[in-house]
Amino acid sequence: MLKKCIAECLGTCVLVVFGCGTAAAIGCDVSGGYVATALTFGLVIVAMAYSIGNISGCHINPAVSLAMLISGKLSVSDFIYYIVSQFAGGIIGALILKIFASSGAIDAGLGSNGLYNGNVGLSILIEIILTFVFVLAILGVTSRDAFSSVAGLVIGLTLTLVHLLGIYFTGTSVNPARSLGPAIFAGGDALSSVWVFIVAPLIGAALAALCYKFLDTDK
Amino acid sequence: MLKKCIAECLGTCVLVVFGCGTAAAIGCDVSGGYVATALTFGLVIVAMAYSIGNISGCHINPAVSLAMLISGKLSVSDFIYYIVSQFAGGIIGALILKIFASSGAIDAGLGSNGLYNGNVGLSILIEIILTFVFVLAILGVTSRDAFSSVAGLVIGLTLTLVHLLGIYFTGTSVNPARSLGPAIFAGGDALSSVWVFIVAPLIGAALAALCYKFLDTDK
Amino acid sequence: MLKKCIAECLGTCVLVVFGCGTAAAIGCDVSGGYVATALTFGLVIVAMAYSIGNISGCHINPAVSLAMLISGKLSVSDFIYYIVSQFAGGIIGALILKIFASSGAIDAGLGSNGLYNGNVGLSILIEIILTFVFVLAILGVTSRDAFSSVAGLVIGLTLTLVHLLGIYFTGTSVNPARSLGPAIFAGGDALSSVWVFIVAPLIGAALAALCYKFLDTDK
Amino acid sequence: MLKKCIAECLGTCVLVVFGCGTAAAIGCDVSGGYVATALTFGLVIVAMAYSIGNISGCHINPAVSLAMLISGKLSVSDFIYYIVSQFAGGIIGALILKIFASSGAIDAGLGSNGLYNGNVGLSILIEIILTFVFVLAILGVTSRDAFSSVAGLVIGLTLTLVHLLGIYFTGTSVNPARSLGPAIFAGGDALSSVWVFIVAPLIGAALAALCYKFLDTDK
Repeated sequence: MLKKCIAECLGTCVLVVFGCGTAAAIGCDVSGGYVATALTFGLVIVAMAYSIGNISGCHINPAVSLAMLISGKLSVSDFIYYIVSQFAGGIIGALILKIFASSGAIDAGLGSNGLYNGNVGLSILIEIILTFVFVLAILGVTSRDAFSSVAGLVIGLTLTLVHLLGIYFTGTSVNPARSLGPAIFAGGDALSSVWVFIVAPLIGAALAALCYKFLDTDK
Repeated sequence: MLKKCIAECLGTCVLVVFGCGTAAAIGCDVSGGYVATALTFGLVIVAMAYSIGNISGCHINPAVSLAMLISGKLSVSDFIYYIVSQFAGGIIGALILKIFASSGAIDAGLGSNGLYNGNVGLSILIEIILTFVFVLAILGVTSRDAFSSVAGLVIGLTLTLVHLLGIYFTGTSVNPARSLGPAIFAGGDALSSVWVFIVAPLIGAALAALCYKFLDTDK
Repeated sequence: MLKKCIAECLGTCVLVVFGCGTAAAIGCDVSGGYVATALTFGLVIVAMAYSIGNISGCHINPAVSLAMLISGKLSVSDFIYYIVSQFAGGIIGALILKIFASSGAIDAGLGSNGLYNGNVGLSILIEIILTFVFVLAILGVTSRDAFSSVAGLVIGLTLTLVHLLGIYFTGTSVNPARSLGPAIFAGGDALSSVWVFIVAPLIGAALAALCYKFLDTDK
Repeated sequence: MLKKCIAECLGTCVLVVFGCGTAAAIGCDVSGGYVATALTFGLVIVAMAYSIGNISGCHINPAVSLAMLISGKLSVSDFIYYIVSQFAGGIIGALILKIFASSGAIDAGLGSNGLYNGNVGLSILIEIILTFVFVLAILGVTSRDAFSSVAGLVIGLTLTLVHLLGIYFTGTSVNPARSLGPAIFAGGDALSSVWVFIVAPLIGAALAALCYKFLDTDK
């Protein structure tokens, strides 16, 4: 379990450094870094899935671990170990970004999420939709052995997908650990609204797990 | 069949929310959202193919279901169940987009398709070509078991391909269910020309099915 | 053989309509359609490889057929059938583009290739390099059965690669059939310099075939 | 071994010509060539991995060969042969770029790396992070036979990933051979700071090899 925890912590740290780091370095406006940021988040998952997937399963996201708990693929105690490791990794990643920001290299917002136009309801709705689709794809592609070689690619590209729609609205969280770390160091609005990016992804993931359990005819 | 219908409805709804939603959120001009929109449509297919592919086959497109009917892979009664579910999913997806648009978050056109420069003939021609290529790739990649692990990636990337050429002309339909939902809520020109984006994709898909039946030497 | 010829003709036609068509529709300047055009050419190969790969091998390029001839995978008579079909497909594709251009929808240059800054030597050098790398990847990925499921993806992404460097210089040919069709209908400089885009790709492909024959230690 | 050395030399040469060449041709600013350059470096790896992967393993990077040495997959003598071939390939590639630059076609910097804002410490830190992630993914994906068909795609996409973050800072080296060649011909600051792009990637790769050895529970 120690190695699994280290892997989850490391993976989430890398996700924050690369994903949030690219957003904070080059920005996300549509004529510039929008596609680049969406690709970066997706490709971190590709890289990490094939690096640590065989060690911990590469959840690196409390919402994904919740879906695995609901699906019966993760015990309650392992779930707790996993999400503590993930939040720790997200905070360490944000600390590394803080070093970059303190030298003026990247934006002080550290790629943190924000409400769309201050609209809490719309932000919660979009995060639930984004996480639902992301987690549904994870559950689908990991449920068949025939897909094991491409699963990391599919999950990564799906994270790119949810960013392509979601950056416009909230910057896209779908991952409480990705949101908490940067919010702690960015402070201000990012910190006061971070609960949205913890609660909504967990709801979306739970709905996806229940939906998939209903739909999957093999079970 | 109920689960298949729910899967087709859900998948088509997700296609419209993400694909049309991204187009309506960030726009499709070449220096901005053109590639992003093309990627989004393709990656929705990737995500859905590995989520619900094992449940319903993930057609989420009446033109694809027509090609499967002609190819003898879908019965007439199943075909009717499928396309009703798909049109329903497209309308539900457009309704979700309408909620976003009503708060001013996204463009009121809801990513609906339109005639190229008012030219009906050119628009029909391009949609037939786009759908022909899209459906030919679907038939090819699903005809060999050796391709089953990558089929979802190939079909998604092919939908990105037809958008890379077609957004410029009509916004790219190749899918009557993707066009009808947004057109209903967008109204105006989108609604009056929606017949083009129902008829032309069906013609293109039928031609692809006949062409593939002729070419495929295994049959 | 008839079906193989039809497949090669169809595939080359689709390559020209989508690849050259996207270039002629949205342009290739770096802040706009550069990446989109590079992606389009690559994704046409992905789509066609999984559509007609099992029928004709999906060369859709006389330079690729030449490399297969040199590698002993294609007979002389088949080589002739293939390249005639490919040139015919390229011309038919350009004719379809001409219809679009005649209504003012796309650029009259039809995505034809051109010399870099009028420099014949540099243009020949870059086309030889581009084709060498493209064909080397084709020979490598098709030489191992373990790669058969991903071969179409790899070859398509390699065509995107050679466009990412080459669009800047010559627009990237690496394919005599892709260049001849549009040049015939575009006329002018495109037609007078088209010999470069027929000769240089054939040289690059021949060098790649010889190089691979030397390097491949299994033979 | 001769064929392996030729393969490593050729692969590294192609990496420099395409990757650095695209950067020097179209530039790397965010609204233009940023994503294109990141894609190019990644897709060169895809193309070369499936071309020469079965011959030499396609390291084409002294940092990767060091990681393989530490992991016990490469002998000391082979390591020396490999890195000499790689540095030679990088220099030959830069020489080809010099030909393009001498005719004014591409930027005289030849896509060489540079310190972020003259900051040596930050540049070393970012290169260590980038190389750590890149090499970790290589070690992970090559450690399972089930991933052999997609390994080249995963490694290439991971190189794109590290460029998406790293171009902003240093242009992204993660590869001493990719940096030395262009620096020699570009001279000036590129040459005086090139030690950073030799030392930091080797440190990052060594850390990744040690980390993976610890984490990988199969060993």
